[in-house]
Amino acid sequence: MKVLILGGDGFCGWPSALHLSMQGHEVAIVDNLSRRNIDNELEVQSLTPIQPPSIRLQAWKALTGRVIAFERLNVAEEYDRLVHLLGDLRPDSVVHFAEQRAAPYSMKSSWHKRYTVNNNLNATNNILAAIVESGLDIHLVHLGTMGVYGYSSVGVELPEGYLQVRMTAADGAEVEQEILYPPNPGSIYHLTKTQDQLFFAFYNKNDAVRVTDLHQGIVWGTQTRETCLDERLINRFDYDGDYGTVLNRFLMQAAIDYPLTVHGSGGQTRAFIHIQDTVRCIELAIVNAPAPGERVKILNQMTETHRLIGLANLVSNLTGARIEHVPNPRREADSNDLSATNAGLLGLGLRPTTLREGLLKEVTEIAKRYTSRCDRRRIPCVSTWTRDNAPGLAMAKAGEAGNQRMQ
Amino acid sequence: MKVLILGGDGFCGWPSALHLSMQGHEVAIVDNLSRRNIDNELEVQSLTPIQPPSIRLQAWKALTGRVIAFERLNVAEEYDRLVHLLGDLRPDSVVHFAEQRAAPYSMKSSWHKRYTVNNNLNATNNILAAIVESGLDIHLVHLGTMGVYGYSSVGVELPEGYLQVRMTAADGAEVEQEILYPPNPGSIYHLTKTQDQLFFAFYNKNDAVRVTDLHQGIVWGTQTRETCLDERLINRFDYDGDYGTVLNRFLMQAAIDYPLTVHGSGGQTRAFIHIQDTVRCIELAIVNAPAPGERVKILNQMTETHRLIGLANLVSNLTGARIEHVPNPRREADSNDLSATNAGLLGLGLRPTTLREGLLKEVTEIAKRYTSRCDRRRIPCVSTWTRDNAPGLAMAKAGEAGNQRMQ
Repeated sequence: MKVLILGGDGFCGWPSALHLSMQGHEVAIVDNLSRRNIDNELEVQSLTPIQPPSIRLQAWKALTGRVIAFERLNVAEEYDRLVHLLGDLRPDSVVHFAEQRAAPYSMKSSWHKRYTVNNNLNATNNILAAIVESGLDIHLVHLGTMGVYGYSSVGVELPEGYLQVRMTAADGAEVEQEILYPPNPGSIYHLTKTQDQLFFAFYNKNDAVRVTDLHQGIVWGTQTRETCLDERLINRFDYDGDYGTVLNRFLMQAAIDYPLTVHGSGGQTRAFIHIQDTVRCIELAIVNAPAPGERVKILNQMTETHRLIGLANLVSNLTGARIEHVPNPRREADSNDLSATNAGLLGLGLRPTTLREGLLKEVTEIAKRYTSRCDRRRIPCVSTWTRDNAPGLAMAKAGEAGNQRMQ
Repeated sequence: MKVLILGGDGFCGWPSALHLSMQGHEVAIVDNLSRRNIDNELEVQSLTPIQPPSIRLQAWKALTGRVIAFERLNVAEEYDRLVHLLGDLRPDSVVHFAEQRAAPYSMKSSWHKRYTVNNNLNATNNILAAIVESGLDIHLVHLGTMGVYGYSSVGVELPEGYLQVRMTAADGAEVEQEILYPPNPGSIYHLTKTQDQLFFAFYNKNDAVRVTDLHQGIVWGTQTRETCLDERLINRFDYDGDYGTVLNRFLMQAAIDYPLTVHGSGGQTRAFIHIQDTVRCIELAIVNAPAPGERVKILNQMTETHRLIGLANLVSNLTGARIEHVPNPRREADSNDLSATNAGLLGLGLRPTTLREGLLKEVTEIAKRYTSRCDRRRIPCVSTWTRDNAPGLAMAKAGEAGNQRMQ
């Protein structure tokens, strides 16, 4: 199949591109390098020494003989180039990773809120409008998030996108209807993903665009079978307070003998998936596209759920690191249950990588190996989330204090 | 109260500004004149001879002694100026009309889809982010649309925003929850209003921004008590296929002896409100703001529902115009029931103006009076809605044929 990957230089996009290429698909990447530019803004860098796109792609060709095309293009801004590219490549599928993907980053300031909204919503609308304008029957695969469901479960197992509800009609009769699960986003980033869902539903209904929306859990792990082949192919590892997901931050903290910082009680339950499973899911989505006329296919792309304190204990047991509770900057429940089905991808053949098997490898092969590249001042999360949220500030100070203790 | 009206030069914004000013509120208008510029693009003009903003405001001051401030500013693009304006004016309420508001215009081409998405979503996010950044407890009043609910009723009377539903929990128990009514937009324009709802819910939850979202029906009528005072204050009347709402097009068609063009069977039921009632509702919303900490207040701003064929018959009976059925360009049910509550605004004191009392006045005082300014080539609706929708093209041709017959 021909696959165009928007955001193919990023943390999920890059290993997905390699995996699809290795599986024999014809792959092209679009990226505006925004993730690398944000590293410049935040004055951080990937813990792992990622190479520029041209080095990465040359290495891939040298190792495998396979060619991946690359186009530097801003999906949210360069609509005409996008339309031309679709016409030139005529891809079977477009995989859409071209969104700002960090919740804390999206809450740093008004500028970051506005950037995230403008980039994510225009990117999604542009690719959908371009698919319609191209006249081609292109399947769009989008990376959503489990966060669209919110974390205030009413005791219902989270379904895959659609929820069966009952209501009382004007004549007193009970009416049953299937609806998109009512969204409850916890950040501007998550908000844009709930708004994306409405784009997909509309373009699917109005223009019969075929869409698969993958509601992904928190991704952990760094390397896939392909990115392991050569250090020039290595994937990003973010440990900073904005882009470092919770497990990556724990691993990094353990590697540098920094306490594992748990926000609040750590009773928050989240869904997780290993990056190796992510790339597998992308291929499963591509080769199992919805039929023409089928509604948006929504799949939960996650394999396990854990409480954050449970993860901290797991890492602590592996490494001996101690745990420190810090105030939670987010406006969220201190503790929540989370039960979700992932029957769709399991049914398509996904075989999950479990945390217990992969975690130690991450600690030794990534976190410890590249410790010298770590800037420990970047680990605390300093986004304040709300204007009245003093804890954000308090936490930043706690982080600084921690650094001083270590230096 | 101090009120800032975003989009205060438009069809609803302008009479709202005058009404609030007349009621003694301190009013300032922001507008980027986009609606006038779109007239240039579409090569049409308001049937009524609207004056430039400065003439309008001078006339208002000369007649009433009241001053309305005006700032030319693009809410979707000039964020910093918007923040400064909030700090300077310190309004109690901001009324947000600053969105592209025509469904057919939003479906004309990829450019128009993208313009509508970019303008409407960035405008809404900018004003919300600016309110948060200002640190002021400003109440935001937004003009939504009854179209967020969609027109495929399941027999439930449309509530005011929130719907009580029941679902089955994992343990088999029945769980009841109140949710935002599941959206079902029929155009890109309507889509943006459903996405706006998610902005409001998020900023309300995260930052306690007080919001009233008014889901307005199709507005008919042209003049209000204030715009009638002097011809320099006259409000817009749009009769073209993009911005002319169905009733205005019928009135115009009747005035120029053009057949009343009904899309499809005319069995579509829609909600309506007179412009005089719109401006009253805006004031009711402003003086009845949600309390601090209250969730988004959603009110249905409509007074009657009618089938389109019923409206056509009403106008036909008043004027003798004949009715012509043309193919429907929209992807929608040919016929639908629509039942909605408007108990909220009635409870606050709204006294509806009915179609039967106001319609004849519109025909004689607006449509017939300014007939010489009508460009009859602009009446047919030529937006195609979907790529495979030949009817849009057929209808444009029908419209042209109609013109040729009349010339």
